[in-house]
Amino acid sequence: MTANIRVTVWNEFRHERQSQEVAKIYPEGIHGTIARALGNDGLTVRTATLDEPEHGLTDEVLNNTDVLIWWGHMAHAEVRDEIVDKVHKRVLDGMGLIVLHSGHFSKIFKRLLGTDCDLKWRESNDKERLWVVTPGHPITEGIGEYIELEHEEMYGEPFGIPTPDELVFVSWFTGGEIFRSGCCYTRGQGKIFYFRPGHETIPTYHNPEIQQVIRNAVHWAAPTATRKLIRGNTQPVNK
Amino acid sequence: MTANIRVTVWNEFRHERQSQEVAKIYPEGIHGTIARALGNDGLTVRTATLDEPEHGLTDEVLNNTDVLIWWGHMAHAEVRDEIVDKVHKRVLDGMGLIVLHSGHFSKIFKRLLGTDCDLKWRESNDKERLWVVTPGHPITEGIGEYIELEHEEMYGEPFGIPTPDELVFVSWFTGGEIFRSGCCYTRGQGKIFYFRPGHETIPTYHNPEIQQVIRNAVHWAAPTATRKLIRGNTQPVNK
Amino acid sequence: MTANIRVTVWNEFRHERQSQEVAKIYPEGIHGTIARALGNDGLTVRTATLDEPEHGLTDEVLNNTDVLIWWGHMAHAEVRDEIVDKVHKRVLDGMGLIVLHSGHFSKIFKRLLGTDCDLKWRESNDKERLWVVTPGHPITEGIGEYIELEHEEMYGEPFGIPTPDELVFVSWFTGGEIFRSGCCYTRGQGKIFYFRPGHETIPTYHNPEIQQVIRNAVHWAAPTATRKLIRGNTQPVNK
Amino acid sequence: MTANIRVTVWNEFRHERQSQEVAKIYPEGIHGTIARALGNDGLTVRTATLDEPEHGLTDEVLNNTDVLIWWGHMAHAEVRDEIVDKVHKRVLDGMGLIVLHSGHFSKIFKRLLGTDCDLKWRESNDKERLWVVTPGHPITEGIGEYIELEHEEMYGEPFGIPTPDELVFVSWFTGGEIFRSGCCYTRGQGKIFYFRPGHETIPTYHNPEIQQVIRNAVHWAAPTATRKLIRGNTQPVNK
Repeated sequence: MTANIRVTVWNEFRHERQSQEVAKIYPEGIHGTIARALGNDGLTVRTATLDEPEHGLTDEVLNNTDVLIWWGHMAHAEVRDEIVDKVHKRVLDGMGLIVLHSGHFSKIFKRLLGTDCDLKWRESNDKERLWVVTPGHPITEGIGEYIELEHEEMYGEPFGIPTPDELVFVSWFTGGEIFRSGCCYTRGQGKIFYFRPGHETIPTYHNPEIQQVIRNAVHWAAPTATRKLIRGNTQPVNK
Repeated sequence: MTANIRVTVWNEFRHERQSQEVAKIYPEGIHGTIARALGNDGLTVRTATLDEPEHGLTDEVLNNTDVLIWWGHMAHAEVRDEIVDKVHKRVLDGMGLIVLHSGHFSKIFKRLLGTDCDLKWRESNDKERLWVVTPGHPITEGIGEYIELEHEEMYGEPFGIPTPDELVFVSWFTGGEIFRSGCCYTRGQGKIFYFRPGHETIPTYHNPEIQQVIRNAVHWAAPTATRKLIRGNTQPVNK
Repeated sequence: MTANIRVTVWNEFRHERQSQEVAKIYPEGIHGTIARALGNDGLTVRTATLDEPEHGLTDEVLNNTDVLIWWGHMAHAEVRDEIVDKVHKRVLDGMGLIVLHSGHFSKIFKRLLGTDCDLKWRESNDKERLWVVTPGHPITEGIGEYIELEHEEMYGEPFGIPTPDELVFVSWFTGGEIFRSGCCYTRGQGKIFYFRPGHETIPTYHNPEIQQVIRNAVHWAAPTATRKLIRGNTQPVNK
Repeated sequence: MTANIRVTVWNEFRHERQSQEVAKIYPEGIHGTIARALGNDGLTVRTATLDEPEHGLTDEVLNNTDVLIWWGHMAHAEVRDEIVDKVHKRVLDGMGLIVLHSGHFSKIFKRLLGTDCDLKWRESNDKERLWVVTPGHPITEGIGEYIELEHEEMYGEPFGIPTPDELVFVSWFTGGEIFRSGCCYTRGQGKIFYFRPGHETIPTYHNPEIQQVIRNAVHWAAPTATRKLIRGNTQPVNK
């Protein structure tokens, strides 16, 4: 696996500051927990949050990010469109993007996929079991047949996404639902992975298998052969 | 929907003749039950079974079949290769193919998909719930959010198939598994639909929603714009 | 094929009013030429243009449109965002959309695909040959191995689109380029077809084969099994 | 990129021994030329040919091969089915496979894809230009906008393959044809890349860009997260 991947973990970082319950689970913020897990793997990791200037996503940060991880929920609307535009362009130019859980409703995810990204949900502590349906996929490295999460928020179909290029995980929930919970896309030169679990009131991002999947996804999404594209008015190549 | 679609329902037709339990559920054979359900819809339907000469799939029958439905289980190995070759060619030339349940292990399905088509299974009367994950797809016409089958054999992932062109249904099982249970493919000019439910000891094919899905799939798989292909050694089209 | 499909042909309709050269080729406007071709096929066809109130796309029109055809070029930026929002929602709810030629840069196409949709181009009267790469596809009905256009604007790769669900045509150009010129997508419950040819200074839409492809695409894109989706906070289906 | 990838280059190796013209171009055999090119990149490379015992593909060789490269043409029928079975199983278990040029008609390629893999062809020294249509794809690393081959055999559509998971190259030919010439598939846990150019009478495999693509494809196809699958009769995971 490639070393030297520069990762930026972006988090809305509101729940953790507004709710004691959430703060207890994620005292460093969700971004802090994820960043620590990735840092242990030798990746170069920084974090950025909504309430920093430019949401922490300055040109300097974006231009030096190979893979961006995104968690948001209650404040999607506060993410400024000009920042979304920049992230969008960076993904098309090759930056990897990992969208977590409630990030399905983020501006950047909806912009890149073009659909409503809507779904069913229920906060009732279903058990979730994420089955690997694409064994051999690099995102599943080190993971068994399934990941079991004793309690999670339920997400149910129909999930309003384009058919994934690769469907890596499908979730089973106690309440009777299923969900396409690990979805790969290529958009422009960038690779995108949506990964379902991670409700803020549940310690999902402390789970070593969940951390492993995110780590795998960082390696999978890191750009390899990006290039400047030639477009617009051109001369014939045939003389 | 197109009228005048000529359907052949092929059934191994062994369980029904060897087991009283199965015969009670399908006194006309599985093929008979499916054929009756489709005939009510104005389709032109005939049946064919393993123990007929040429397995009932003579050139005359195949050349006059727009959509072939396939159920087999205990005698896959007895299907002669030269018949499989003919069915394979017909599908590539445009004939639709609907493969049911244990037909996942049939020679023709494995030939067309190129993979092992293996899976997990359990005869323990799980409840199955088939969720529609591609709303708007013609195969889901008239079906609600999901189809619930009080008892069915369980099939579990990893299912050894290529990524479906379209994934229409995903099943939930009481025992904790999920399964990609409605899968669309195009191979050559032919359309293929794999539909999971239908264990021989369970009256699944008497279920009106299951019948509706099969009927929809017949209309979906019927050929439209088939043609004779020009291949081999050819002259330049540019003078 | 289904009758009673209600088609709206939308055209920017500026070139035809500003350039005598274009007006001579399309005296009724590009929309008029396409509408006449489709009307001959028994479809219910109306037209709408940019400079009508609400761009001719009132709620009443959109709610009674099964398939929307889109041609635009010089005035993409003038299409109001709230109209784009409505068209976007209608496509996700099942309305078919056929995007023609320079419509690759329209707001609605970029919104639905999520990428930049950029490409190479050259106005130099290359010969174009559109090869059928998916024989058997309903959009190719009645078309031979390829469509040859004596003169057309060239579009070249890399075309900034997601991998098409189905790639129906690939173009060859005299100048040495190729282009994915017939691309199918499903987004939400809606089907989308992008079809490359049709520069305003060339009588492409008078070509019977081009008209046939558009007609086929209308039938292909017409909605079949659309439904109201259940999303949001839901109770378990398992008791 | 991963080091320590074990590559086996398989060649039919008949043309080179039967034709002086071919032997002059490939004095070491096509396999020898490709092996030398890959060896320079630090990969562990061996070769195997049709007329060796077991076609050079003993269990020991196959079990120690991460990526198999396949060139064949005049003797596809002589490849023994039991060897094809073994290669097929190894691919489903994760071994990468790169099929070159006339290998489109090999037993192993047709077995894995399930279609007839037929096409048009012409030996008339067309110029070929392979356009990159998926910039950013690792197989295109170090390649410009296109690869130009002054002379090559022409292959034309319709190519009888399933829709590629990823379409990396599309070829333009002087004679007026186009061809999907770089096609990626995943089958089971194995990755497959079909790469069109390489007629035996033309020194294509001496071309550094062609060598680069094959080298990139080796890295792309090397297995990462393969596993032993649990299938068959299983107990519920839910207690």
